[in-house]
Amino acid sequence: MARIGVLTGGGDCPGLNAVIRAIVRKGIDVHGHELVGFRYGWAGVLAGESLPLDQEATRGILHRGGTILGTSRTNPFKEADGLERVQASLERLGVDALIPIGGEDTLGVARRLADAGIDVVGVPKTIDNDLAGTDFTFGFQTAVQIATDAIDRLHTTAESHNRVIVVEVMGRHAGWIAAYCGMAGGADVVLVPERPFDLEEVCESLRRRQRRGRTFSIVVVAEGATPKEGAAWTQHAGTDAFGHARLGGIAVHLEREIEERTGFETRMTILGHVQRGGTPLAYDRVLGTRFGVEAVDAVTEGDVGRMVALRGTEVVRVDLDEALREPKLLDPRLFETAEVFFG
Amino acid sequence: MARIGVLTGGGDCPGLNAVIRAIVRKGIDVHGHELVGFRYGWAGVLAGESLPLDQEATRGILHRGGTILGTSRTNPFKEADGLERVQASLERLGVDALIPIGGEDTLGVARRLADAGIDVVGVPKTIDNDLAGTDFTFGFQTAVQIATDAIDRLHTTAESHNRVIVVEVMGRHAGWIAAYCGMAGGADVVLVPERPFDLEEVCESLRRRQRRGRTFSIVVVAEGATPKEGAAWTQHAGTDAFGHARLGGIAVHLEREIEERTGFETRMTILGHVQRGGTPLAYDRVLGTRFGVEAVDAVTEGDVGRMVALRGTEVVRVDLDEALREPKLLDPRLFETAEVFFG
Amino acid sequence: MARIGVLTGGGDCPGLNAVIRAIVRKGIDVHGHELVGFRYGWAGVLAGESLPLDQEATRGILHRGGTILGTSRTNPFKEADGLERVQASLERLGVDALIPIGGEDTLGVARRLADAGIDVVGVPKTIDNDLAGTDFTFGFQTAVQIATDAIDRLHTTAESHNRVIVVEVMGRHAGWIAAYCGMAGGADVVLVPERPFDLEEVCESLRRRQRRGRTFSIVVVAEGATPKEGAAWTQHAGTDAFGHARLGGIAVHLEREIEERTGFETRMTILGHVQRGGTPLAYDRVLGTRFGVEAVDAVTEGDVGRMVALRGTEVVRVDLDEALREPKLLDPRLFETAEVFFG
Amino acid sequence: MARIGVLTGGGDCPGLNAVIRAIVRKGIDVHGHELVGFRYGWAGVLAGESLPLDQEATRGILHRGGTILGTSRTNPFKEADGLERVQASLERLGVDALIPIGGEDTLGVARRLADAGIDVVGVPKTIDNDLAGTDFTFGFQTAVQIATDAIDRLHTTAESHNRVIVVEVMGRHAGWIAAYCGMAGGADVVLVPERPFDLEEVCESLRRRQRRGRTFSIVVVAEGATPKEGAAWTQHAGTDAFGHARLGGIAVHLEREIEERTGFETRMTILGHVQRGGTPLAYDRVLGTRFGVEAVDAVTEGDVGRMVALRGTEVVRVDLDEALREPKLLDPRLFETAEVFFG
Repeated sequence: MARIGVLTGGGDCPGLNAVIRAIVRKGIDVHGHELVGFRYGWAGVLAGESLPLDQEATRGILHRGGTILGTSRTNPFKEADGLERVQASLERLGVDALIPIGGEDTLGVARRLADAGIDVVGVPKTIDNDLAGTDFTFGFQTAVQIATDAIDRLHTTAESHNRVIVVEVMGRHAGWIAAYCGMAGGADVVLVPERPFDLEEVCESLRRRQRRGRTFSIVVVAEGATPKEGAAWTQHAGTDAFGHARLGGIAVHLEREIEERTGFETRMTILGHVQRGGTPLAYDRVLGTRFGVEAVDAVTEGDVGRMVALRGTEVVRVDLDEALREPKLLDPRLFETAEVFFG
Repeated sequence: MARIGVLTGGGDCPGLNAVIRAIVRKGIDVHGHELVGFRYGWAGVLAGESLPLDQEATRGILHRGGTILGTSRTNPFKEADGLERVQASLERLGVDALIPIGGEDTLGVARRLADAGIDVVGVPKTIDNDLAGTDFTFGFQTAVQIATDAIDRLHTTAESHNRVIVVEVMGRHAGWIAAYCGMAGGADVVLVPERPFDLEEVCESLRRRQRRGRTFSIVVVAEGATPKEGAAWTQHAGTDAFGHARLGGIAVHLEREIEERTGFETRMTILGHVQRGGTPLAYDRVLGTRFGVEAVDAVTEGDVGRMVALRGTEVVRVDLDEALREPKLLDPRLFETAEVFFG
Repeated sequence: MARIGVLTGGGDCPGLNAVIRAIVRKGIDVHGHELVGFRYGWAGVLAGESLPLDQEATRGILHRGGTILGTSRTNPFKEADGLERVQASLERLGVDALIPIGGEDTLGVARRLADAGIDVVGVPKTIDNDLAGTDFTFGFQTAVQIATDAIDRLHTTAESHNRVIVVEVMGRHAGWIAAYCGMAGGADVVLVPERPFDLEEVCESLRRRQRRGRTFSIVVVAEGATPKEGAAWTQHAGTDAFGHARLGGIAVHLEREIEERTGFETRMTILGHVQRGGTPLAYDRVLGTRFGVEAVDAVTEGDVGRMVALRGTEVVRVDLDEALREPKLLDPRLFETAEVFFG
Repeated sequence: MARIGVLTGGGDCPGLNAVIRAIVRKGIDVHGHELVGFRYGWAGVLAGESLPLDQEATRGILHRGGTILGTSRTNPFKEADGLERVQASLERLGVDALIPIGGEDTLGVARRLADAGIDVVGVPKTIDNDLAGTDFTFGFQTAVQIATDAIDRLHTTAESHNRVIVVEVMGRHAGWIAAYCGMAGGADVVLVPERPFDLEEVCESLRRRQRRGRTFSIVVVAEGATPKEGAAWTQHAGTDAFGHARLGGIAVHLEREIEERTGFETRMTILGHVQRGGTPLAYDRVLGTRFGVEAVDAVTEGDVGRMVALRGTEVVRVDLDEALREPKLLDPRLFETAEVFFG
């Protein structure tokens, strides 16, 4: 019997609550642990801001988007005395082990805490599916589905002549969501960060379609896709309030450029955070549940410094370092399959 | 027994196919008419481009978005000898009466054709719900639902601190969709074309929410909403390939301005044509079906120069002029009800 | 400023929480009332089981199915000293007025309490749309949509030869849901309580379809539909644990009878409570919100003994008696429109 | 360049059209093959009933349920001279190779045709996920999602006292759908074919929940689940028009038995073919697309007598025999994970 802290870091991802609920139910009902939730990711650990996590606290959350714990992008190792404050906080609260649920940043912190002797088991989380070490993470299929539903709807407004619709989806460094929803939705062009695109080629493929009698085209673009010919548009996009390059500019840029160059009426859809929120698909709830169960089992067995992962149909444990390798970029063979249907 | 032509004009609207199918089924099975479809709205009438419309042609289309007839913005009265060409085309094809399905433009043409002695019964269509003479039209509820689903998803990404999400929805002249989805989704600010907004007031209401502990806000904005302080943003938005003021700029503008003025992380979702396409809600299929049945009944009874309309729970016939009055702007009492929940 | 009690009675209906939230927000924020919720309908009033209803208690409930207050079928006038106990409870809790949300039973109690001098404003609720006095109630469109979604899915399993699918939907006394989802889904046969059916005629129409090359048919049946030839099947269905005639038997009966009589493979789908639960459509959230606002306005103005109602596009107040007249059966003209598409 | 025949056999499964479209697009656009579709599975092969499959024939089908080719349960090896007729038909139509898409029966035929020297590459299909040799098949996730959506809706009608809802889902021999939707939906009891259940134990677990204050329970039951105590209920269910044991009886049986034994109001939902139809999830469209592409690649490379399969994140080729081993029953470890959340 141990006292285990749980936290969620980084951006929202459908399925987070399924993980939390699973840790709590297996942890309490089966293993007899005590569970503590930290609010707002590592910020809550630093501040010692916690809440008791029991069956009652996790009732009715399985199908809900977001995270009941809140999240933040705080990194204790970027704070003065971060490690010491984390250690002091865990000691004060009597927390024996941590299960952080998050992406590269969150798991990077977990790795360093493990090195400092803290018992940690990580749960990988990335809506973009770009985390190494696991076949898939929860939330990704939900995001793909939301984008696919949008493309489906766009397809039936296809009656007008020579219209192009640009759909911007998530994917900062990796084009998994774009490739999947492009394949599932039957997009005509898919632009991903892994392959800088030539805008003139894009326009030419749209003209070719039009010459073949296709008067309607759908261009799916990942928010992180960039044109080969230099990032004129990124200047246009600028940076956000926190100095990060602002995403969401690429569709605005493409809408104008394509319309100007081809003369085809061009319109855009920017899905934005719609892809991050709301009820997770069953797939992501099951995966999140299995991750949560495995993580608390690992803690129970003292198998720490580890991360749970999906490999084939199995949920396994791998070294935390696995997730911290290079981001998992789009499988070229998958993209090749997608390309069969372009144009 | 007559030979009746059907056409759809203007932008897509979920439920168009339900109207067409209903005209065909009631027209053929019950009244024994012959039905002819014109392709691409009035363009098809001018060009005499038609296809036979029978049970087979309309099988399996009830739940489909778009229109099997295609659509265009062609106005015969803006073409040389337009009226004569319409008359010649109808005569050549032996068409006795027309059922045009469309908005203000399409029904305006219908009105003038009726004046010229052609038997016409109109079916009103506007995704924005801004057509006078009818309580509602098909497609509107579907668009509201799609926007509401998006807002629901956005609501569950509410865990982060001080985030604002701007959701741009349709509504060029009237804010019906914004008001409805704002009420249904629990938006915190709703901006509509009927009420030019003061951007500083919007920011202040977001700051007030933050001071009251609400760290997350949703701003719904109709594409046609404009700031009081002059249209700096419209310059930004520019015009499209056809010289029309481009819509879809307002969210881009708001995202930047709100973030800059409040310092709250601000993100946007632009739904665009997603709202126009895809499977219509049952509500819109039933309404479209009732409209189609009533329209072909009116033609059969020689009750022409008319438009079908919803009044309360009844589908009735009104004069075509009814639809051509001033656009039906947002009911101020409805907006008052919506405002109870703002901020 | 008053202290107002709110309760929900009878079966669940999507939109109940929208009504409660609207009463609270308009009641507190605008009118400055105090709001009290009674748990489990009239049972909570009798027992004095209440909870404070404020903004916090109603946050995040707009899109949720069910009712945060719980519900029951308790009728105080069927309890010993029911009226006296209600009066005593209201007095003890300092409740000045009541807003009961419910169907015929709940509003019947409201009527009698009003006669006894209690300030009451009712909000009509019926998933079946069979309450007189209002054009529509919240929840109905959601139920229709859920049934229509199911029919849509069934339509695409149409490839097999000679298959019949029976879909049982809600509608104990009135066939509104069946007629609406039948029209929206393109059903081939729709059986409603208002029109006892001849099973042999149903089978004959299915055989006719098959002879015309339609190898797939969908039969929508309201749970309260009955065969003309006597209720052999009701014996089969039996009564439930509370002595009420059990619903849900008719599809089982039809599946067997149709298969036996026609030799067509027949399968059933029984939606059951799926139609009552879950996220309400935007339509029902807006209607529920408008009902709630109007109800608390009426209480504030002392316009009691009334019920809110939808008439056309307006939410109005009518006498409570309006809802207690005969149930509102299916409009025969609507059913005539539906019948155009049968067979 | 070859002439390749495609057919779909057995029950509908969301994603079939994605497979067909992928075979056609990769087959024609990339490999330069000619594609022929056989109607109604092996029946169409026997009868030589074929249609040309080109880009036009497969346009707009990606998101549609059902199969544009139709399906049947015909087995040529159960027909007189079946093999000879298949061979003659292929020769007459000049078909060089076959891609049958189907389950155990269809692939069993494929195996025997391969033994007879016909070039065959199979695509596995089972809505129940019970086919060996592949991690998953298309359609399964869609069925799970539909069932999960239903359970989500049922969960919000939880306000009444002591109610049990029985949800019958697909799964004749294997409980994959039940286990997945049970985990995803948070069911309280899940009954699967792999584990005959004790009805009294089920009732006791429902009573235990009630004693712990849970007044609402959801029982998910696979159509093929059976009670330990002998199949009294199967007698009740009887056989269908084709002499097969009728499914769909178990929920009717459970509804009555549970209500009678526990006194809790019990209601049922039977989803039936709703789970088989309609728009496939993105997951299933991507998987179906990848299967189709791989199958036509295999034919092109002469790698025949094979079946495509999912292994981890890869689509691979395995021997046709792989699919014909024992059905893939529910992974006991997965069910163990599910059980953590029961009761």
